[in-house]
Amino acid sequence: MSTDGLDLAFDEAGLLPVIAQDVGTGEVLMLAHADVEALEQTVATGLAHYHSRSRDALWRKGDTSGHLQRVSEVRVDCDGDALLYLVDQTGGACHTGHRSCFYRTLDGAVVADPVFDPDEVYD
Amino acid sequence: MSTDGLDLAFDEAGLLPVIAQDVGTGEVLMLAHADVEALEQTVATGLAHYHSRSRDALWRKGDTSGHLQRVSEVRVDCDGDALLYLVDQTGGACHTGHRSCFYRTLDGAVVADPVFDPDEVYD
Repeated sequence: MSTDGLDLAFDEAGLLPVIAQDVGTGEVLMLAHADVEALEQTVATGLAHYHSRSRDALWRKGDTSGHLQRVSEVRVDCDGDALLYLVDQTGGACHTGHRSCFYRTLDGAVVADPVFDPDEVYD
Repeated sequence: MSTDGLDLAFDEAGLLPVIAQDVGTGEVLMLAHADVEALEQTVATGLAHYHSRSRDALWRKGDTSGHLQRVSEVRVDCDGDALLYLVDQTGGACHTGHRSCFYRTLDGAVVADPVFDPDEVYD
């Protein structure tokens, strides 16, 4: 992987939205954001990095939880303004304990069981 | 489906990012945005609606191309700031003629063949 191939259209904050998808099951796990640094670290290490908007900091997914994402491929959309990380997800992607952050329907129904106890994973 | 169940965290522009995923194959098709109107129209009609940021207008996917998206479910993420439309995609989602907008890797390699000729679909 390289970051040289395509023109990427980072937004005014220097970010691109990133969809993380389980490369094995196809499950959409989460939506986050990457800046150039996060993307470069993802490519360099093979582990998913994002830019935390709330902390305004580089964020290696799983640093706290151990739930790393091994990235097998990074895809770019037609306009170069969104990314897709195809990942092998350790544990769960969601801080609530669910494998995917998209565990609810629009009317609030929970459609997936948690896969870990967040109280045991996060301090 | 209703829009009453969950608190949604629309951004300062009144938008939420929306991932469209093929409900049959799991393929991630596109990333777009919805405002309240687009979400309500999606729920009311069962057809994917978005808010076009470039045109600042309601956008029913497929109005020009005929490539409608029938929405079987809308999922909401843990923070209420992203949506996932599970869709049955007619034709292709991408204006380039590809089924998914994410048809390239980061270094520019094309990993999927087009499924339609955009010159025949768009005026």
